[in-house]
Amino acid sequence: MSKSIFTQHQRSSQCDARRGEVATKHGIVQTPVFMPVGTQASVKAVTVENLVDIGAQIILGNTYHLFIRPGHELIERFGGLHGFMNWDRPILTDSGGFQIFSLEELATITEEGATFRSHLDGSKKFLSPEDAVKVQESLGADIMMCLDTCIPYPADRSQTVESTALTGRWARRCREAHRKKEQLLFGITQGGMYPELRKESAETLIEIGFDGYAIGGLSVGESKQQMHDMTEATVAHLPDEQPVYLMGVGTPEDLVEGVWRGVDMFDCVMPTRNARNGTLFTSSGKVVIKNSRHREDQAPVDERCGCYTCRNYSRAYLRHLFVSREILAYHLNTIHNLYYYLNLMQEIREAIEKDSFASFRNDFYGRLEGE
Amino acid sequence: MSKSIFTQHQRSSQCDARRGEVATKHGIVQTPVFMPVGTQASVKAVTVENLVDIGAQIILGNTYHLFIRPGHELIERFGGLHGFMNWDRPILTDSGGFQIFSLEELATITEEGATFRSHLDGSKKFLSPEDAVKVQESLGADIMMCLDTCIPYPADRSQTVESTALTGRWARRCREAHRKKEQLLFGITQGGMYPELRKESAETLIEIGFDGYAIGGLSVGESKQQMHDMTEATVAHLPDEQPVYLMGVGTPEDLVEGVWRGVDMFDCVMPTRNARNGTLFTSSGKVVIKNSRHREDQAPVDERCGCYTCRNYSRAYLRHLFVSREILAYHLNTIHNLYYYLNLMQEIREAIEKDSFASFRNDFYGRLEGE
Repeated sequence: MSKSIFTQHQRSSQCDARRGEVATKHGIVQTPVFMPVGTQASVKAVTVENLVDIGAQIILGNTYHLFIRPGHELIERFGGLHGFMNWDRPILTDSGGFQIFSLEELATITEEGATFRSHLDGSKKFLSPEDAVKVQESLGADIMMCLDTCIPYPADRSQTVESTALTGRWARRCREAHRKKEQLLFGITQGGMYPELRKESAETLIEIGFDGYAIGGLSVGESKQQMHDMTEATVAHLPDEQPVYLMGVGTPEDLVEGVWRGVDMFDCVMPTRNARNGTLFTSSGKVVIKNSRHREDQAPVDERCGCYTCRNYSRAYLRHLFVSREILAYHLNTIHNLYYYLNLMQEIREAIEKDSFASFRNDFYGRLEGE
Repeated sequence: MSKSIFTQHQRSSQCDARRGEVATKHGIVQTPVFMPVGTQASVKAVTVENLVDIGAQIILGNTYHLFIRPGHELIERFGGLHGFMNWDRPILTDSGGFQIFSLEELATITEEGATFRSHLDGSKKFLSPEDAVKVQESLGADIMMCLDTCIPYPADRSQTVESTALTGRWARRCREAHRKKEQLLFGITQGGMYPELRKESAETLIEIGFDGYAIGGLSVGESKQQMHDMTEATVAHLPDEQPVYLMGVGTPEDLVEGVWRGVDMFDCVMPTRNARNGTLFTSSGKVVIKNSRHREDQAPVDERCGCYTCRNYSRAYLRHLFVSREILAYHLNTIHNLYYYLNLMQEIREAIEKDSFASFRNDFYGRLEGE
């Protein structure tokens, strides 16, 4: 068992939300936290200075992509991801499992590991649980993830049992391969849509012992209710003393609901990807910036927002940039969406501190319904 | 005749280079100056803050593009280009002539003006010399350009005579249509590759009287020697008391040679466009960043460069971003190339002040040949 790297400051009296912090070798992360995704050693369309300005505490890198290009050995020679991309705050890397299974139709798994083809040149690659840890150690991640298997949705019980068991065996191998202990290692729970398998998966991983625990296999097509139920079914069996990370989730509403159920960490491409598609998050809901009703609109995207984009630019200008396909559109939209997400988490942390998360949640939905 | 808006500080004892300043309603521009191009109300891939950091004194907007989208009336309602795009330093707008003739195969010119089709929706448009001034007044340009006709290269003498004469008649109409005198109006000399027509064109425009004079119709396919000869043939007949602008030029070498011959102002898409194509300018020549020899190169693009990109990123990282098609590649490359151009102009201004431009020019070529 690892020593705990998590400190809980407050627990809501109204729900399972909690305010805490995670200690990593590149600094402390205040939780609940949202982690912007920097797939290819860049959070798309923004600089590291922008991320600091926006208030990003920790970002995520994708092991699969970096393994394929430019390669973890190269990145290691540049001082890891931190040195390569000029980011000195914490980084979490995923294990590559999700991308292998979602990008590669021909991926095959055996007891030994995953065989797949590069999406760039079709070359055959192999990644074992031990490799996944080694690659992430080379990348210099503050928080590494165990290699897991992905369960399709829907999946029957026997398939889910089998896949979850393999994830458990791989987790043990990851734990044993883990050498650089200042780089934290999180286990990933699976269990599909079966509460008792979620419980079993959590117990298996706890028995092995990790620095933190992730909830995998959600936001894969299931209903919101299922997502909430499976989150609850997992969190109920995880130790209070360690951070809980809900992987690949989600919408602003998903973050609020995840925090409500005890989740400490989130990541998702939604704010950055939607920014590049021209969909902007606001306190009163989504804004599709190319809509012609914004053509002459002098107002900012969100009157309540304090981001650089909202302080300086009109909806009309952002619409013009987007329909003109100017790169600046992606930049300004990304700054706004990430600020929206990170500011939402900041407000959530403050609400938990004041033990007013229930009323914050009501206000949040009230504003969304306002327009 | 307008009052002069140009102050000459120094004239080189070695050549026609001069150090001066141009006064506009948004401030003073130190010359010789390079103006980054912001075609669609955005200098591609950078923010206005980046431009200020890099040292941009004045930027260029393209009347044709803004006339087509989002329209000058809309921009006028947003406080002109300055308010719309959040830039409070001087702006020069071209007249639209060059784009009409270069983007529109079906453009037709009559005595009255230019008829063309929008490159966006094919709709028929008409722009007279009077319209060109009115549109630029709406855009709020500090420096506006007369509508001119473009002469193909090569062109025979009679075609050049006819087109240059029409440019002269249009210039007179622009001058008469010019109402907002705090927005300066420059005339554009033509004359193709015929020195005596260059002289005639300059004399015609001087007789009308403008705030400054541009040299048009160069960098269209002629040799470097022809470009230099036509620049000399024009500058020789322009008044010392007003700024000289060489339009659409050029490479770093072209800037040095233009300044040598008495040019005060330049604009070109080369630094920004090349940045997006992965070609970076350095003190020792061009670097093609995708080249595999940069794969593991820990050095910055240019050891002599003080830009944000060179201070923080390796060639290897920039290569990774470029081959991965990350938007950050275009951003960091553009910052570097614009800094290179603007720093070159800064060094040129200092050299003229010290009356050492000839040795600066020798050193400049010496470094280029160094690799």
